[in-house]
Amino acid sequence: MSRTKEYVVTKCYNLPGGECFTLESGVGLEELRVAYETYGELNEEKTNAVLICHALSGDAHVAGYAKGDKKPGWWDPMIGPGRAFDTDKYFIICSNVIGGCKGSSGPKSINPATGKHYGLSFPIISMGDIVAAQKKLVESLGIKKLLSVCGGSMGGMQALQWAVDHPDMIVSCIPIATTYKHSAQQIAFDEVGRQAIMADPAWNGGDYYHSEPPSRGLAVARMVGHITYMSNESMDQKFGRILKKEKLGYEFTTEFEVEGYLRYRGDSFVKRFDANSYLYITKAMDYFDIQKDKKLSEAFKGIKMRFLVIAFSSDWLYPPSQSKELVKALKMNGIDVTYCEISSAYGHDSFLLEFDEQTKLIKHFLNRSFKKKAAEK
Amino acid sequence: MSRTKEYVVTKCYNLPGGECFTLESGVGLEELRVAYETYGELNEEKTNAVLICHALSGDAHVAGYAKGDKKPGWWDPMIGPGRAFDTDKYFIICSNVIGGCKGSSGPKSINPATGKHYGLSFPIISMGDIVAAQKKLVESLGIKKLLSVCGGSMGGMQALQWAVDHPDMIVSCIPIATTYKHSAQQIAFDEVGRQAIMADPAWNGGDYYHSEPPSRGLAVARMVGHITYMSNESMDQKFGRILKKEKLGYEFTTEFEVEGYLRYRGDSFVKRFDANSYLYITKAMDYFDIQKDKKLSEAFKGIKMRFLVIAFSSDWLYPPSQSKELVKALKMNGIDVTYCEISSAYGHDSFLLEFDEQTKLIKHFLNRSFKKKAAEK
Repeated sequence: MSRTKEYVVTKCYNLPGGECFTLESGVGLEELRVAYETYGELNEEKTNAVLICHALSGDAHVAGYAKGDKKPGWWDPMIGPGRAFDTDKYFIICSNVIGGCKGSSGPKSINPATGKHYGLSFPIISMGDIVAAQKKLVESLGIKKLLSVCGGSMGGMQALQWAVDHPDMIVSCIPIATTYKHSAQQIAFDEVGRQAIMADPAWNGGDYYHSEPPSRGLAVARMVGHITYMSNESMDQKFGRILKKEKLGYEFTTEFEVEGYLRYRGDSFVKRFDANSYLYITKAMDYFDIQKDKKLSEAFKGIKMRFLVIAFSSDWLYPPSQSKELVKALKMNGIDVTYCEISSAYGHDSFLLEFDEQTKLIKHFLNRSFKKKAAEK
Repeated sequence: MSRTKEYVVTKCYNLPGGECFTLESGVGLEELRVAYETYGELNEEKTNAVLICHALSGDAHVAGYAKGDKKPGWWDPMIGPGRAFDTDKYFIICSNVIGGCKGSSGPKSINPATGKHYGLSFPIISMGDIVAAQKKLVESLGIKKLLSVCGGSMGGMQALQWAVDHPDMIVSCIPIATTYKHSAQQIAFDEVGRQAIMADPAWNGGDYYHSEPPSRGLAVARMVGHITYMSNESMDQKFGRILKKEKLGYEFTTEFEVEGYLRYRGDSFVKRFDANSYLYITKAMDYFDIQKDKKLSEAFKGIKMRFLVIAFSSDWLYPPSQSKELVKALKMNGIDVTYCEISSAYGHDSFLLEFDEQTKLIKHFLNRSFKKKAAEK
């Protein structure tokens, strides 16, 4: 395969003029833009489309190389000929979430009414809104039914939101390393990140697109995030108490490897991410609650699709216990669900690192979903 | 007992003039001040003294009411007649750690050489330095041997440091909800707190004693801390997804109870704590490593004292697994050690909330330590 020369190009869906995209809050957006990439080819029957949803800091560039890229997309080992999402068989779509900063409408976009960046005047969005925008994109491609919706972390929340909001539009669902509702601790971590950003004077109420962005606040937010993405065990294995210098310096510089790593991750994040988007997307995650005031099992009433739920043993941000509750609720509805807990030391980040087992599980699951759908005709 | 009228008074130990207090880093302090409180009476033989060590944000005021107090000291239910630390039997000492901001020498103190607040010119201190200052205080009271040194969280680190640095000066040791060395994850959480403080422009390189302190940065640091002090379970029980208003407001205000709680804890902390002290004390915690380059069991070679090690089932900041490793290392040295894991949902905060079991365990342990010591004579 000569992929190196086939550069991936990000495309754009725009809401047709005259239409209005109404959000869960009741606010209407007159302009809606969804950046997306596709891989493989849509078959004639349009039955082989799979939507992959990204996590908090991801984007539409899930695989391959865009022109000038040094690294491939964020889940590249999972997408391509013969891979979990086999591009010889399936048509893969990945779009940037609205509220984001990688091409889709978000706080960094220009508000057509004012000609200026939205900033905090961009309306608050929910996971349902993110999914509704994806639905617009999917429909614009002439696809009536997705073979599967898959995602890890916040991507898994989107997959679950698809399942309950548009059950007739998907054949199967693959939520990975995720939860069915944000817990108090998960909200708490997000709130710390938001407070760190808003505490930075450079944030300036969200109005910083013509000045220095709140880099220090965003870096602190990302640092907190990174601790939750790794397990205690993987941090100990990777860094332990290893020093950057030969011995303790008795000063407030970066002394331990783990401090250096966090600062590096924080500093590199601010170069590629918008602080306001961080606020909007974490808010959508905190609002995420499939259960609402019902019993969890009632949320999935009448749903027919197949599920593959994957969790990772050392993930303490979205622990396997939450996936198991989800699986139980699905089973209570007689839904065809496979649950796999992959043993890994990498914590929440496992879904971005453990490719072998995920590949086998997803490959077989998609294969069966595709055959089952063909047989139904 | 008519404790209400017996106000507790904080006293002060000052290093005698002409003496110099040399820190682990090699830097010498010509002025050293240790604020402390005592409860009960020292017996004639001076064999009934117990040192209680406080955690990151604690102080010398461990029990009783100081004049004007609305709340008693931070571990009040544990100290008093008939309580775990029975003041009818024992003489209880609690001092503020150096580097702190509650009366002992720290970055907020006036540097005698300049007549100005030290700020960041205060030297970096280690857990060994904190303990060495306590030793000066204990000796100044004419006490040659402490019946016990006890503490939770960072207090437990001090107890362990006493055990290895001054083994002949203590009869027994009670480390609670603690660890024998700060792990990568523990360093990481501290580093996030420090970065949040130093990212606040009001911090001004540590020089803010005549201007607005870095309250927002310190509040974020405290918010991160509070998440680690509670368990996932206790956060869910206490807050779940409960809203402060009737319904979602689709705005960046405090919407969930858990957000309100964190902001409240952050905001109230900045009124009583010095941001620079937060930097110095967390640094001392990160430096804390009883094991160093040795096997852990070798760190306790030749030590004779008795140990009571207490951990809490839901404590994920200093998890029981770390206490068990400590216990194993002590046992490898033939040391008389009792290990108790208390089942509690409160997470790390359990040591400040679960009084009944801690009281029983400590009361019997101290009683036996006292009798054993008397029998040895």
